[in-house]
Amino acid sequence: MYRKYANAVIGCLLMAYGSAAIAQEELLWREVAAENLVFMELPGGTVTIELNPEFAPKTVQQFRELVDERFFDGLGFYRVIDGFVAQGGDGSDLGELSDKPTIKAEFEREFDEEMPWEPAQDPDLFAPQTGFVNGFPAARDPDANEVWLTHCPGMLAMARNNDKDSSRSDFYIVIGQAPRYLDRNMNVFGRVIHGMDAVQKIERGPEDNNGIFRDETRITRIRGMRMATAIDESERMSAYVVDTHSPGFEDLLDARRDRRQDFFHRKPPKVLDVCQVPLAVRLTK
Amino acid sequence: MYRKYANAVIGCLLMAYGSAAIAQEELLWREVAAENLVFMELPGGTVTIELNPEFAPKTVQQFRELVDERFFDGLGFYRVIDGFVAQGGDGSDLGELSDKPTIKAEFEREFDEEMPWEPAQDPDLFAPQTGFVNGFPAARDPDANEVWLTHCPGMLAMARNNDKDSSRSDFYIVIGQAPRYLDRNMNVFGRVIHGMDAVQKIERGPEDNNGIFRDETRITRIRGMRMATAIDESERMSAYVVDTHSPGFEDLLDARRDRRQDFFHRKPPKVLDVCQVPLAVRLTK
Repeated sequence: MYRKYANAVIGCLLMAYGSAAIAQEELLWREVAAENLVFMELPGGTVTIELNPEFAPKTVQQFRELVDERFFDGLGFYRVIDGFVAQGGDGSDLGELSDKPTIKAEFEREFDEEMPWEPAQDPDLFAPQTGFVNGFPAARDPDANEVWLTHCPGMLAMARNNDKDSSRSDFYIVIGQAPRYLDRNMNVFGRVIHGMDAVQKIERGPEDNNGIFRDETRITRIRGMRMATAIDESERMSAYVVDTHSPGFEDLLDARRDRRQDFFHRKPPKVLDVCQVPLAVRLTK
Repeated sequence: MYRKYANAVIGCLLMAYGSAAIAQEELLWREVAAENLVFMELPGGTVTIELNPEFAPKTVQQFRELVDERFFDGLGFYRVIDGFVAQGGDGSDLGELSDKPTIKAEFEREFDEEMPWEPAQDPDLFAPQTGFVNGFPAARDPDANEVWLTHCPGMLAMARNNDKDSSRSDFYIVIGQAPRYLDRNMNVFGRVIHGMDAVQKIERGPEDNNGIFRDETRITRIRGMRMATAIDESERMSAYVVDTHSPGFEDLLDARRDRRQDFFHRKPPKVLDVCQVPLAVRLTK
């Protein structure tokens, strides 16, 4: 009986979120390459991450090395602000606790004519254009011919100090409303493609200390982080993400821009927040 | 030693989030009236809610009655989609499990000349203007002289079916990137002012079932919900929220619109996402 009501009620609100009916065959999937696939074990579950060497090659390379050296295993999210970011690592981007070099800024890149671009919004509040590049939310300035990854929930970027070239090992995950003002100021290098519920369970730090824990015993620790390449193929999960350049995804964006369901008594403006588009993923063994 | 590094690293990213130095005396506080103050006990902690009778008087009145009847105690969040909403109640907005009447739509209201308005963004992507009204994020259409609460993270609204007047008891909390396309389509009636970390710990439902749990044992239950008015004054917490019409808050918005810190190598556009402004709160006994 409970179930019956639940379905009746929710079917509606649901329509407001899910895409309109999209033929499954039009929605193509892309397998995430093993060298860009990372599994992070948290107490709340496994977090699956896709790295993006297309936008942040040096950052991704260093991150891969740190993961393979098991640098992050046992370290924690030592600064966590609800609605903003969970920042993890050893707490040292000054390099005292890592032998890695600092990373030069990879805040944006040239827009390559070969680069696929699925438009979301033009103009966006924070950029001339937003859209998707190979599964990642991005923004673009056509005049400057530049493109960059946007600070949407679930995005990973490197922490740094005031020096733009000071990233080294510590990173943050966006856990709240997109802090888009950080765009083009950080080395954004990946995205949580599955397991944001586990990320959201990370313990928040004290608000009166800007999220930095005083009591280290309360810090949520990384049990382990592994590149997919370090796991035997027979043992590891494969990840398939929605192909943001397939006709099905374009239809999904159109359906979100132009809400035709009876549910909407006031038709929403025909705009799209690039950070408010669900990106489907399938994990299989 | 850990601490030292942690502070060094994080001081920087921090500047990007917190307000610039604001004289404490300019930031005024408003005590939340007891009749608008609700405490919801979840397994992950206490969630403190402010109701908004200014925008949704009928919804708030019915919600108060439901809370006082302990209607929600033991019920759960039966449909939870990460990045979107956690929906709770009895799963029946068809009224089978509550003797309450349905609530007529309270999707927007007339802008009253007496109403304070602290502007955030003009124009916003989803509305001609956004701003704050008595501590709540809102949007406005000056031509139509209408104003409404916006679907920011932490906002509470009533679930409904396709009938705009079908809200009754079940509600949702926004837990992800603001679904602003729902604005002016729902009875938005309150805001989580403290304890979003506990809300974020609510168990997510199965993605292949649109967040609706099949296994009811996995549903996060509401241990209890109480109006502050039902708790003896000597026993209850008082909540003070930032006065969004005080000079200090205006300074905070200015500092977020115009980032002057050395941290920013690329100055962000001078825009403000009304859903990306932290609203300070103090709870005291």
